[in-house]
Amino acid sequence: MYRLYDYLPSGNGYKARLVLKQLGLKYELTPIDIMKGGSRTPEFLAMNPNGRIPLLEVPERGYLPESHAIISFLAEGSHLIPTDAFDRARMWHWLCFEQYHLEPSIGTVRFWISILHKTRAELGEKLIEKKKSGYASLDVLEEGLRGRTYLVGEKYSLADISLFAYTHVAHEGGFDLAPYPNVRHWLDRVASQPGWTPITEA
Amino acid sequence: MYRLYDYLPSGNGYKARLVLKQLGLKYELTPIDIMKGGSRTPEFLAMNPNGRIPLLEVPERGYLPESHAIISFLAEGSHLIPTDAFDRARMWHWLCFEQYHLEPSIGTVRFWISILHKTRAELGEKLIEKKKSGYASLDVLEEGLRGRTYLVGEKYSLADISLFAYTHVAHEGGFDLAPYPNVRHWLDRVASQPGWTPITEA
Repeated sequence: MYRLYDYLPSGNGYKARLVLKQLGLKYELTPIDIMKGGSRTPEFLAMNPNGRIPLLEVPERGYLPESHAIISFLAEGSHLIPTDAFDRARMWHWLCFEQYHLEPSIGTVRFWISILHKTRAELGEKLIEKKKSGYASLDVLEEGLRGRTYLVGEKYSLADISLFAYTHVAHEGGFDLAPYPNVRHWLDRVASQPGWTPITEA
Repeated sequence: MYRLYDYLPSGNGYKARLVLKQLGLKYELTPIDIMKGGSRTPEFLAMNPNGRIPLLEVPERGYLPESHAIISFLAEGSHLIPTDAFDRARMWHWLCFEQYHLEPSIGTVRFWISILHKTRAELGEKLIEKKKSGYASLDVLEEGLRGRTYLVGEKYSLADISLFAYTHVAHEGGFDLAPYPNVRHWLDRVASQPGWTPITEA
């Protein structure tokens, strides 16, 4: 059975949990309290030298870090990955966009504000920069969803799961989704998928 | 024939060019001068709303942004992608690590210093943070290469191409690779692969 080392409020961990549940894969969860240094212990660093969750333990193979490596491994051959090669590449384009643009902005601001409880005054210029970059990511997502039901090939895929993870909790970092109707309607569609569960559910 | 929209000093673009060359795929290059706003014109934004190079034009299908989406699309079914599912997931883990940790630190510092010609004084605290994060990425890469010839399954793969791109020009951002012998020897191995070309070669 798979074992997932995870911190429940993590959007990156949530991606892995959603895929495990939506594909009906059995797993055990080992909670890691990253706020108390749980991902930086010698034991954890021996499993993932980068000291980060989520981390998937694959029986007889080893440890797999990075949310997108985990979900693409779990979903291989399933309906969550497009069969067409170009559509699959478009799916990866959205996953890369999420990790490079949306997560480091929207995910980071949410982490600072709703998990570390930092104030605007403490964060200063860094917050202003990240908010700007977060809204730029939302602009790209809004445009990518124009006239589309899902991000790739009109079918629900890992791209939707990945982008949903931090976008649906963007308000926890103070982002206002009101000017993004395509994004809001798409969030509703993703949250109505079979097997969907809230972010902090194990 | 493929068309690659690219800016030659870009490490992300270089990944795509290396894969195209090492797989013997024909392509035409359209240089985009990002320093003169070439990736933010209405024409370019119509192809990639995220306004970034590299961008691959795939005949009869459309436009594909994001270096890792591009290289995994181009290399599908080739020797550059491991056939074993877990090894393939480990390859993706390295690609994700590169885009989330190594490129935003080492790649960004190189961009500031060697392309934008910013000074240490101008960059201040931002530079100190990025340097710290860049060296942390090099620590992880050094550890990942311990006892290994290549990053995944002892075979040259997209993981090596991706991590090579910004690591081999880390010195252009002032990073010192002297304390990283595993990294230095691996850089030499990657640079001796058939079809290897320098970063700014079209």
